Amino acid sequence: MALHPFDPLRPEEIVRAAEIIRPIYEGQAINFRVITLREPPKNEMVKFLELGACRESELEKEEPVRCARVELIATTRGGRNELFELLVNLDENKLMSQKLLEGKHAYVDSAYMKEVEAACLADKRVQEEIRKLNLPPGSTPIVEPWTYATDGMNDMSERVSMCWFYCRHLDHSDANYYAYPLDICAEVSERLEVTRIYHIPCAPDERINDEERAYDRRKIHATSSSEYHPDLRSDSRSTTKPYQVVQPEGPSFDVQGNRVSWEKWNFRVGFNYREGLTLHDIRYEGRSVFYRLSLAEMFVPYGDPRAPYPRKGAFDLGNDGAGINANNLQLGCDCLGTIKYFDAWHNTQSGEPMKLPNVVCCHEQDDGILWKHTNFRTQNAVVTRSRILVLQTIITVSNYEYIFAFHFAQDASISYEVRATGILSTAPHHLDHKGTVPYGTIVAPGVMAPYHQHLFSLRIDPAIDGHKNTLAIEESKAMPFNDANVHNPFGVGYYSENHYIELEGGFDLDISKGRVFKILNENKTNPITGTPIGYKLVPQPSQMLLAHPDSFHAKRSEFADHAVWVTRYGDDDFFPAGRYTMQSSGGDGIASAIRRRKESGDPDAVRNEDIVIWHTFGSTHNPRIEDWPVMPAEKMVVGLKPVNFFTGNPGLDVAVSTQDKNKSVSYNGPADEPASKCCVPQP
Amino acid sequence: MALHPFDPLRPEEIVRAAEIIRPIYEGQAINFRVITLREPPKNEMVKFLELGACRESELEKEEPVRCARVELIATTRGGRNELFELLVNLDENKLMSQKLLEGKHAYVDSAYMKEVEAACLADKRVQEEIRKLNLPPGSTPIVEPWTYATDGMNDMSERVSMCWFYCRHLDHSDANYYAYPLDICAEVSERLEVTRIYHIPCAPDERINDEERAYDRRKIHATSSSEYHPDLRSDSRSTTKPYQVVQPEGPSFDVQGNRVSWEKWNFRVGFNYREGLTLHDIRYEGRSVFYRLSLAEMFVPYGDPRAPYPRKGAFDLGNDGAGINANNLQLGCDCLGTIKYFDAWHNTQSGEPMKLPNVVCCHEQDDGILWKHTNFRTQNAVVTRSRILVLQTIITVSNYEYIFAFHFAQDASISYEVRATGILSTAPHHLDHKGTVPYGTIVAPGVMAPYHQHLFSLRIDPAIDGHKNTLAIEESKAMPFNDANVHNPFGVGYYSENHYIELEGGFDLDISKGRVFKILNENKTNPITGTPIGYKLVPQPSQMLLAHPDSFHAKRSEFADHAVWVTRYGDDDFFPAGRYTMQSSGGDGIASAIRRRKESGDPDAVRNEDIVIWHTFGSTHNPRIEDWPVMPAEKMVVGLKPVNFFTGNPGLDVAVSTQDKNKSVSYNGPADEPASKCCVPQP
Repeated sequence: MALHPFDPLRPEEIVRAAEIIRPIYEGQAINFRVITLREPPKNEMVKFLELGACRESELEKEEPVRCARVELIATTRGGRNELFELLVNLDENKLMSQKLLEGKHAYVDSAYMKEVEAACLADKRVQEEIRKLNLPPGSTPIVEPWTYATDGMNDMSERVSMCWFYCRHLDHSDANYYAYPLDICAEVSERLEVTRIYHIPCAPDERINDEERAYDRRKIHATSSSEYHPDLRSDSRSTTKPYQVVQPEGPSFDVQGNRVSWEKWNFRVGFNYREGLTLHDIRYEGRSVFYRLSLAEMFVPYGDPRAPYPRKGAFDLGNDGAGINANNLQLGCDCLGTIKYFDAWHNTQSGEPMKLPNVVCCHEQDDGILWKHTNFRTQNAVVTRSRILVLQTIITVSNYEYIFAFHFAQDASISYEVRATGILSTAPHHLDHKGTVPYGTIVAPGVMAPYHQHLFSLRIDPAIDGHKNTLAIEESKAMPFNDANVHNPFGVGYYSENHYIELEGGFDLDISKGRVFKILNENKTNPITGTPIGYKLVPQPSQMLLAHPDSFHAKRSEFADHAVWVTRYGDDDFFPAGRYTMQSSGGDGIASAIRRRKESGDPDAVRNEDIVIWHTFGSTHNPRIEDWPVMPAEKMVVGLKPVNFFTGNPGLDVAVSTQDKNKSVSYNGPADEPASKCCVPQP
Repeated sequence: MALHPFDPLRPEEIVRAAEIIRPIYEGQAINFRVITLREPPKNEMVKFLELGACRESELEKEEPVRCARVELIATTRGGRNELFELLVNLDENKLMSQKLLEGKHAYVDSAYMKEVEAACLADKRVQEEIRKLNLPPGSTPIVEPWTYATDGMNDMSERVSMCWFYCRHLDHSDANYYAYPLDICAEVSERLEVTRIYHIPCAPDERINDEERAYDRRKIHATSSSEYHPDLRSDSRSTTKPYQVVQPEGPSFDVQGNRVSWEKWNFRVGFNYREGLTLHDIRYEGRSVFYRLSLAEMFVPYGDPRAPYPRKGAFDLGNDGAGINANNLQLGCDCLGTIKYFDAWHNTQSGEPMKLPNVVCCHEQDDGILWKHTNFRTQNAVVTRSRILVLQTIITVSNYEYIFAFHFAQDASISYEVRATGILSTAPHHLDHKGTVPYGTIVAPGVMAPYHQHLFSLRIDPAIDGHKNTLAIEESKAMPFNDANVHNPFGVGYYSENHYIELEGGFDLDISKGRVFKILNENKTNPITGTPIGYKLVPQPSQMLLAHPDSFHAKRSEFADHAVWVTRYGDDDFFPAGRYTMQSSGGDGIASAIRRRKESGDPDAVRNEDIVIWHTFGSTHNPRIEDWPVMPAEKMVVGLKPVNFFTGNPGLDVAVSTQDKNKSVSYNGPADEPASKCCVPQP
């Protein structure tokens, strides 16, 4: 099948890019971190897309250059690691540019983490510390390397890994070691040397490396209630009867390569190592709505103030990658019904293509009633059901899981659902400590789950029937009462006020003002309403970053300061906390970029321009014990809905719901059997 | 089957209550408005419920008196209507009390509304006004009577109906007459006399009864795009393929009478004419969680300041009744899968039982992933799917529909979902008027949909492992940085602060503070976390009432002023805007009740007491044209989740998801076929 400019690199293109690059570093060890599509410049793509349907020859003329973006670490003869970014023209098989990235670090992957773990466990001093813990027989120490959140305590010129220690108490490879955090941790250098070992605090008044250890370090709690794997649990409900989704005529979607068509929608599926799933050129009935939708970043800062915990602050996209940590989705486990799976390709450290199987799935769901009306005069009901199309990816980042799904609906709305699940990050705590912890929850004896936040940045590149768009903030306001100039004789009047944003910046939600963020195309007026056509953002109201503005957490995650940002579109500007988040020290985020453009006189006007909207949302996650040992999914939902974009309900033509098609079953179970009056179960 | 004290009145009990009452009004015309269960006093019910499982004889001894609450209108010999409330002891077949309700009015029903419509259309002056409109041939005028929202312009000693006029342009009984609002309205008295006729404004600068009519009143827009009924639409999608839910072993729930058991949950279903669906004695694994859950009220005030529109302010429960307006749900239309339907009983005006068929349905849904974890070391994934139990009712109140559903989940959470759908209330507008309306949206030529709010009150009567509970407000707060007394060396620390509410009152959400409302049982400490057991409210963040505090709208809907209220429990205290909302003038709501109790020295302490929580939520609905002619469902969701109530994830034992049970299908559609490069549909 022919390649589309938005299609991710094919394996043969990854091979080719690596082949073009290897000779440049002749004689040096190189570690390919990224070989990915450099997405085409928008001005070229817009021309290409505008050519539209079936003009093949012209399309070829207008097709943007196919270009790979490569990151690699080259080791100098002196043994120093240097990070480079290169662009390769794949149409002409030639290097376009090469740049040494001073002071920046590449993301890490599981291969590297495994090396760090092995190095740590092989270290004599680490072994001695573990020996001193006198773990019960049969226990296995586990080292979990994390990227290091900058805290000012280390030179950041090389990558440093923080190693957290746990212990597996059961002889089962899926035993939950997070249930047994140990009270030591270590730093490991990029050269895989253990540079520091710490004793970590285990009570609110303890400090890192305190010599006093007023508790029995060997005491551990019983294991049964901390296991999630079915092999290790005796209790399994048998009460949940099977529930199957049957689509006798197949699904309503059509997938050709990466192009998905469904119920008047069509778009293209993209994927890269960092953002994971991306969506491109999203249209409804052929009308452009969004140029690109993606999760751009997420930050998970922990609220425990005690060293070394301020080093826990994960950029799960920038440091780890939502793409390379995407799960291999399994038929019948992650979804019901008829499912299309998409594979993706990444590269190995040596530059070979590496398949990421089943990383995205596409399926339909029933979503209840789409619309209903009963004419009370005739008692005639007309009801339609809402079918949605789901594009889903699930990632595992160490202990946590995130389920990311775009939902397309028949009423021309899109929603983005995030579910957080998986296992809490844990810290050791005195088994005998009495009382609570102000910034954490004791989830098992000796196990403290610290408070933390999950802050996501959804990047919305709108193309609301064209590329010149405006962000408007609407508020609903009471009219003045008893004001001679305002006709509001009964005090019930209210009106909406629209504020059109002129300059780049960040904005906050205000529920009390009914604040609505709309993306408008001021060049197109709805013929009926007389207002600009648009889509609105239905935000997930969330507390913003709690860390102090002067902290590294705050400086590194600028996007986490406001709920809605608008910027002028720029090619390759996908990173609200900066492109290189690994051990970043701040100043690379969205606020700094806006400030720099303002200061340099670069255009920062955003009214009726090609703009990008960034929505920050998430949760302040103060764990409940119900989140342990594995957390019931916590849902967050962001919506994008047409506001006077159409001339009526886009789902008006959805066929009415009928028993003939739905084949529901009436329950005539034990309802008619005589029941005892004993209605309360024995407590 | 034996009656449970929470079971609604049986038809024979309705008959009996009416028989006991009729002789009292010998010689008078009586109109039975309500014959319903007077729910037993809580102190009696608690004793009854505590006896628990299988002690039949003792249960009978402790069973509360079966009591009917009756409202009726008796017409005096002088022709005056008097509203009475009576209580009838059904165990002893005797009247317990009788009270004349001076200055109060009964709710209205469709029978009365039909009488009002007929009276209005029979009125000579109305006929003359309609004649003057010179409607096109084949048009039928329609009169839609509404309850009158107090505006101070009429004596409220009798019920007044506001009649809004529309016109049906097509010869089809389900043609959408809301698409043709006429510019007249009328008042009709309780005696069914037309007392006033008004010309209503049709542009922002027009006023009621303005004589200037600078437009052609006969002009109407084309009908095609304003119809929702499939008979009247030519377009119907054929692209949506069938989607069926199959439960080969039947559903996982068990229903015996009104008692529902499902996946460790059990509760009783109640129903009354006003609140509709109510839930009682909700337990998880036998542990009490909630004594009663119900929608207590809803208010829909309109924001158009021009007379007569301030009269549009509907209490859809207090004035109309969610119970008597509940839809007869149809198999295969409103839900999928295996469905249990519940009927309910109401009474006719003459006191006979009237069946309300299929007003509640109960079924299961798949809700995606409940929890998942992949051990990145072994790549072993464990995933469970979330099954939910849905208890749903749908009401039609004139133009609008509301879908109310309680969702029970396997993680011991409950959510309450409201979907607003149906048809917008409309007002006439000059067909030739240019420009927009500050408090409305032009949804079709000549049709203005005014801004309005939907404000719901969810009544939560908690019994968190006992009846003495406390409302606590938790906030997540940054720790001071650079404060010698606080250990926060890196500025990242944050903590939670709990404020226990001591006295009755109303409280607001504050997303920026991460405010969480928890219902705690301070008498029971979680053995692991060391904190009180509880459930938290996950609110639907919403703008509160916009009408001025001095307006009748505000005085009548006191609950709409704050998002969360806590009051001391009182029997029969189900009404946050007062029991008699019809033409109420204020002072009967939750804030006034709190103030009166405070002033009278009645106990208003709510800490560790039997309390009730009321959550106000809803939407500021500034219509989009996409809501026309029938509105895609707008979802609102409120959650109730355990917070340190259990000792771990209550859904941990849910069996893992397997293809063997789920029988999903892999899509191998046209993906592998060659596709053309033509990827953009013709716009």
